[in-house]
Amino acid sequence: MHVIHPVILCGGSGTRLWPRSRKARPKPFLPLLGQRTLFQQSLDRAADPMRFAPPTIVAGSAHCAAIEEQAEQREGAKLIVEPAAKNTAPAIALAAHSLPPEAIMLVCPSDHHIANVQAFCAGVEDAASLAAQDNMVAFGIEPNGPETGYGYIRKGAPLGPGNRVDRFVEKPDLATAEQLLATGEYVWNGGIFAFRAGAYLSELAQHRPAMAAHAADAWQRATRQGWQIHPDADAFAAIDGESVDYAVMENTAQAAVVAADMGWSDIGNWDALMIARLADEMGNRVSGQADLIDCRNVMVDSDSLRVSVVGLEDVIVVVDGDEVLVTSRAGAQKVGKLPGAAQQ
Amino acid sequence: MHVIHPVILCGGSGTRLWPRSRKARPKPFLPLLGQRTLFQQSLDRAADPMRFAPPTIVAGSAHCAAIEEQAEQREGAKLIVEPAAKNTAPAIALAAHSLPPEAIMLVCPSDHHIANVQAFCAGVEDAASLAAQDNMVAFGIEPNGPETGYGYIRKGAPLGPGNRVDRFVEKPDLATAEQLLATGEYVWNGGIFAFRAGAYLSELAQHRPAMAAHAADAWQRATRQGWQIHPDADAFAAIDGESVDYAVMENTAQAAVVAADMGWSDIGNWDALMIARLADEMGNRVSGQADLIDCRNVMVDSDSLRVSVVGLEDVIVVVDGDEVLVTSRAGAQKVGKLPGAAQQ
Repeated sequence: MHVIHPVILCGGSGTRLWPRSRKARPKPFLPLLGQRTLFQQSLDRAADPMRFAPPTIVAGSAHCAAIEEQAEQREGAKLIVEPAAKNTAPAIALAAHSLPPEAIMLVCPSDHHIANVQAFCAGVEDAASLAAQDNMVAFGIEPNGPETGYGYIRKGAPLGPGNRVDRFVEKPDLATAEQLLATGEYVWNGGIFAFRAGAYLSELAQHRPAMAAHAADAWQRATRQGWQIHPDADAFAAIDGESVDYAVMENTAQAAVVAADMGWSDIGNWDALMIARLADEMGNRVSGQADLIDCRNVMVDSDSLRVSVVGLEDVIVVVDGDEVLVTSRAGAQKVGKLPGAAQQ
Repeated sequence: MHVIHPVILCGGSGTRLWPRSRKARPKPFLPLLGQRTLFQQSLDRAADPMRFAPPTIVAGSAHCAAIEEQAEQREGAKLIVEPAAKNTAPAIALAAHSLPPEAIMLVCPSDHHIANVQAFCAGVEDAASLAAQDNMVAFGIEPNGPETGYGYIRKGAPLGPGNRVDRFVEKPDLATAEQLLATGEYVWNGGIFAFRAGAYLSELAQHRPAMAAHAADAWQRATRQGWQIHPDADAFAAIDGESVDYAVMENTAQAAVVAADMGWSDIGNWDALMIARLADEMGNRVSGQADLIDCRNVMVDSDSLRVSVVGLEDVIVVVDGDEVLVTSRAGAQKVGKLPGAAQQ
């Protein structure tokens, strides 16, 4: 049993959940499922002091106010404030520098939903045991459809409680996604990873030496203010931003995958959020004041006005401040293209 | 050519156009089609001083404020304030008492839409010529579908520019409506009538003697304040309310009908209003701030918030004050059953 160090990454703009998600208050910091925000739920899942060390949060300065407001347990925790958005590989490098080389890092996005926390915890144990042997471990999500919005991972030779990674496939088209699904050999890339901190930094130095050097430099010249750590802006600015998937996972010989069936969703649009919410016997989901007549599979989410809906099926209605969104479930993926979502 | 006296009836609650139509500001007093309200358009249609005398408006006291605000031309006009809502037959009796017995009355609802005013005017001439001969004349609307929400009139023997009425059929079920339509002999009852004032009062005295006596009594004891006339409340309260259709038209031997194809609509619900509005090339109608993606035959009508709609067809979205309505076009007829519409 290794103590595990949660690393919570806060990023992204979340235009697809507009108008609830706005630049000033993006998706991780909204109570989209239950009373607590997705960010708080990410912390809660890794809060058991018997298994987890205090968290390391990595975020841009735009998110600091929300984090200061929502992160209640600060004892031993730290908030690394990225001087610029450089994608996940450099963000994880900063977190790795902040930990002892032997620390097992559990890297988690702050805006995903996990319905089955027990399954998540079991996956964490499996991933940690593989990471302790210097494997670079991705969480694989059992797919339930030919999603085109996710990366896919092909499971290779068995490796302890998981598998070696045979191949990464970036967001496929629908026909390809269906083929991958049919083989039964692929899982989705859930964006959750486990690494030994020292192993991550040496893999990064091997495959992205410039990025590794700039990140190390930024860290060495960091300043501390309370629990906030501010890496050097000039050094960090020199980095070419890249995801951990491209920079490390697709290059390392040590890639491993642990499959977990944990009710995972990236809540990537309003339809995904609707699916994650509890329905009544007609499939309707209501949050806020709403009256429905002759409706099936309708979601209403209003922060203010009463919403009355008649005779609709598979429709989502959102009221937030001065904006009203009405979309078909299928149309939910285009919400980010609306003028309102783009203008904010 | 007889001078024609317009009688504009203001009544009804209009719950089916909720939330735009409210008790405090019902349908006739809203600018639902164009800049002017339906009430103003009713006055405008009968405003030509070469053809029409100044109007007689009959309304409940709840509507007086809106009428005072919206009726611009008061020269010679009068506003009869009903002490209680007693349906159309007594209201028309009050108007008839206010006019010389030889006056030709053109009784018009204040909340209908007529797209083709020329055809309306031609119908008025035909109806007036028949009314001058003491016929009780209904306007028949050429039907364009088996509507179940309207009364039907069967045209009988030719009578000048119109026909004798053979039969009235109250709101039929769908199968009956389809049968009526197939005969080609039926028109809708548009709720527009032409009578000689004295003829109306004598028909009413013949078929509803108590109502006629109470109405005459209420009129004789009326008080006048400016252009407002207030019939006696106690006398009027004794009346059993009834429509002109039941009280007079279905009983008189003098019933006549003049068919008119004048783009008539009673704007009975949001779908009817949508049909009466101009569409863009995708069939969409937008009033207020709205952005549409992948939409067909969608109507948005917002008085405040921006409405963004994605991927929908045959849907109506209304924002009014603190209420949002989202309905399928087919569901529009059930809007009056919503708690919001009932509670107001």
